[in-house]
Amino acid sequence: MTYQGMTTLNIALIHHPVVNKIGDVIGSAVTNLDIHDIARTARTYGISRYFISTPYEDQQQLVRELLAHWQTGHGSTYNPARKDALSMVQLTNSLDEVIDTLTKQYGKRPLVVATSALLRENSVSYQDLGQKITKGEPVLLLFGTAHGLAPEILQVTDVTLPPIKGGTNYNHLSVRSAASIIIDRLLGS
Amino acid sequence: MTYQGMTTLNIALIHHPVVNKIGDVIGSAVTNLDIHDIARTARTYGISRYFISTPYEDQQQLVRELLAHWQTGHGSTYNPARKDALSMVQLTNSLDEVIDTLTKQYGKRPLVVATSALLRENSVSYQDLGQKITKGEPVLLLFGTAHGLAPEILQVTDVTLPPIKGGTNYNHLSVRSAASIIIDRLLGS
Repeated sequence: MTYQGMTTLNIALIHHPVVNKIGDVIGSAVTNLDIHDIARTARTYGISRYFISTPYEDQQQLVRELLAHWQTGHGSTYNPARKDALSMVQLTNSLDEVIDTLTKQYGKRPLVVATSALLRENSVSYQDLGQKITKGEPVLLLFGTAHGLAPEILQVTDVTLPPIKGGTNYNHLSVRSAASIIIDRLLGS
Repeated sequence: MTYQGMTTLNIALIHHPVVNKIGDVIGSAVTNLDIHDIARTARTYGISRYFISTPYEDQQQLVRELLAHWQTGHGSTYNPARKDALSMVQLTNSLDEVIDTLTKQYGKRPLVVATSALLRENSVSYQDLGQKITKGEPVLLLFGTAHGLAPEILQVTDVTLPPIKGGTNYNHLSVRSAASIIIDRLLGS
């Protein structure tokens, strides 16, 4: 991995534990475009690392094959810009592993921030969190697949960003869209 | 179509004419997630209509089948929120047809706005365009697939939004991410 992020913001896309539409804790399948789209946005904004978190070996193998195609296979010469974006993607087993990795890297535990379609306690504004990143504070921002992060994930987060409101009562953004909007709100000019 | 948009912003995703990586004018294939993701974002922000523009009959048929699945088929009961978002999607042959439709609806030609990964003349700021929409001015915002809108499309647009900058020199956002970020910048609180 040669890419050096230009900010202290790291993101993780969690595939387990997340919840389904009735609130059961589940694991979700990896979606190709979640990896591509969010990596391209992350690369645009100088994010440090984009962790794909899944404990399932078959899903991990899919991610490895996708990354190999774009990093060393045909995709790497066909589309060097995509290789560049995907170079920041790191496969991981669990949120605990992500926090351990970043704690070693920065010499301190990062601020762990949840995103949610619901307003939760301990919320932090986009402006305040953006300023922390600008000042160089290590931050790990979590996105949930399926219908969002499970309670056990929320319990280990320090703060939560408020939900994205668009002036309607509809709150069913794709995780790809939500991640792009949130990253722009934090780091866009 | 029962959905009534809460704003005077309309968007169109153009599949022809667009350019490929070396600047040739081409037509692109419709991508399922372009329809889903951008419709969900558009619905979140109260956009009036989301036009899918392609002149190709086989591509139009794919779009019709997708919309039928979610509007009257199994998808409509499996995921009513998706039905809701996709109810604003309208299939169309060309940009001219979109402009005609909106001109009849509003009684005047909408302001036609291009998006681009390059800075162009006649640029309008996100803030100024957002204020025009808030004041009720009819606006049609265009997104290009492939490597962007063709010159003949740019020639009929009135103004262009500046490219999204993320503090790096990387400008390869997916159209799904770019549309989400731009709509949030125009209509987000």
